[in-house]
Amino acid sequence: MIKIVVAGIDIGGTNTVIGLVDRFGNIIFKTSVSTRDAETPAMLVENIFAAIDPYLRNNSLILDRIGVGAPNGNFYTGNIEFAPNLPWKGIVALGKLFQDKFSVPVKVTNDANAAALGEMRFGRANGMNDFIFITLGTGVGSGIISNGQIVYGHDGFAGEIGHVIIERNGRQCGCGRKGCVETYCSAGGIVKTYQELSNNIAVNDSKQVAELAAKGDKHAIETFEKTASYLAFTLANAVAFTSPKAIFIFGGPSNAGDLLLAPLKIKFEENLLEIYKNKIPILRSGLAENDAAVLGAASLMFS
Amino acid sequence: MIKIVVAGIDIGGTNTVIGLVDRFGNIIFKTSVSTRDAETPAMLVENIFAAIDPYLRNNSLILDRIGVGAPNGNFYTGNIEFAPNLPWKGIVALGKLFQDKFSVPVKVTNDANAAALGEMRFGRANGMNDFIFITLGTGVGSGIISNGQIVYGHDGFAGEIGHVIIERNGRQCGCGRKGCVETYCSAGGIVKTYQELSNNIAVNDSKQVAELAAKGDKHAIETFEKTASYLAFTLANAVAFTSPKAIFIFGGPSNAGDLLLAPLKIKFEENLLEIYKNKIPILRSGLAENDAAVLGAASLMFS
Repeated sequence: MIKIVVAGIDIGGTNTVIGLVDRFGNIIFKTSVSTRDAETPAMLVENIFAAIDPYLRNNSLILDRIGVGAPNGNFYTGNIEFAPNLPWKGIVALGKLFQDKFSVPVKVTNDANAAALGEMRFGRANGMNDFIFITLGTGVGSGIISNGQIVYGHDGFAGEIGHVIIERNGRQCGCGRKGCVETYCSAGGIVKTYQELSNNIAVNDSKQVAELAAKGDKHAIETFEKTASYLAFTLANAVAFTSPKAIFIFGGPSNAGDLLLAPLKIKFEENLLEIYKNKIPILRSGLAENDAAVLGAASLMFS
Repeated sequence: MIKIVVAGIDIGGTNTVIGLVDRFGNIIFKTSVSTRDAETPAMLVENIFAAIDPYLRNNSLILDRIGVGAPNGNFYTGNIEFAPNLPWKGIVALGKLFQDKFSVPVKVTNDANAAALGEMRFGRANGMNDFIFITLGTGVGSGIISNGQIVYGHDGFAGEIGHVIIERNGRQCGCGRKGCVETYCSAGGIVKTYQELSNNIAVNDSKQVAELAAKGDKHAIETFEKTASYLAFTLANAVAFTSPKAIFIFGGPSNAGDLLLAPLKIKFEENLLEIYKNKIPILRSGLAENDAAVLGAASLMFS
């Protein structure tokens, strides 16, 4: 029987993961190609074609549409614009390259927006018209859903909660400014906080900090409390913008679980304006970490 | 000739202003009744009916719909909920009262959202799908437009930029927390900054501070620079949420003009993330101050 699928493509700095997804969110086939080894974006698209076309043919699958999540992917233009972690510089007309090669409709957005859409369609935000999705990882990304739609802003660059300044003259951020959320709440920010508290610079991975905290290391526990405090402050302020029904946390540091989430929830409530208190749950994403990006990218074409 | 009009009703703590508006934004008739003297919300509605019904009859006008802007007015419920500056406490089913009396469709929202809609329909935000509208006055209110719609949030309480905390452990806010935007950028916040800088507590009106600044008083000039600095920081962070095409400033303190706006624009650009720089104008509202609330409330029913 012939089956129609959508390709969800997650372009990362090292690898690009491609999933063929049916409309129920089942990933029928998943594979990956190297992003770094593709000398040009066109070569990446060629390699992706080569990686999935035989499978499509051999299994009577029809590729109907392609959704792409990429760092600095712009929904309006289909371009990737000045992505610091990708091998190609400047503006890359990625959507057009895919469209020319595959001859199907293509949409592009950034990775956090894609994951937020994935959460809405296949995760725990199902049926929610207003929520905030936060990804904690190398950076801090966000996707904001309002009135049932991604908030893209007039230029496609909305939803940069990681670059809200929460500490004037705080830590130096990669963006050139100081005190952004990202400098405190990303994986690297967590490591830095631990190093500052413990004077132990041998620890250089947020997972290690979580392991130490689980064993009772007081500096590691304090690190998660501090991280929670910064994130709680950020999220309580964020609520005043879009009054979400829930906030979802995704990515590496959220795997620390209650080490982060327990103090986060307490401090979040402490920081909230009265009218918002006790009604906005902070939840871990319902998407499996390995599938979220692919499902999210595919969701671009289901919504 | 029979003409169809919408009533735009602006409920303030002291007075309620009612305008009969045609679809081009012409205010055909404007009048007001006392809010404070209405012992019950039902009496206010009766008084409004008495104030406009004869005019409607005598001028062959048909009242088609009613839009109401009120402090803490909730779009979803039609209720006013715990408005601190209105004479009636708790939850008031205002929309229903109007509907029962006038037998026409009624919508209710808060005053800042109404004014933002007015800006979109009849002001300078015409044709913009993404913008932020800030009202400076007794408080600091905001209306956020994204994807062409007001951001109401899941409960109708979105868009409280005045209660974003910008100074942890800062000034005491009426909301019970500390360091909200409102404590620095409202008319009262401006007065407080001047009093702190000058040790002159005889000045107790933000208009006076503007007059002093215009005359070259250094504390008054510094007051506007500080106010601009707080507001610039707030707005630069706000951009990271919804990436607006423009930001509109409305209300008393914005009449200080370049005293506030010139430093505001400079500091706003300084605070912006690179991708947002040099593309988001900060503009004064295009609505006449006296008509904005009524036109805004009427716009609720045009959109």
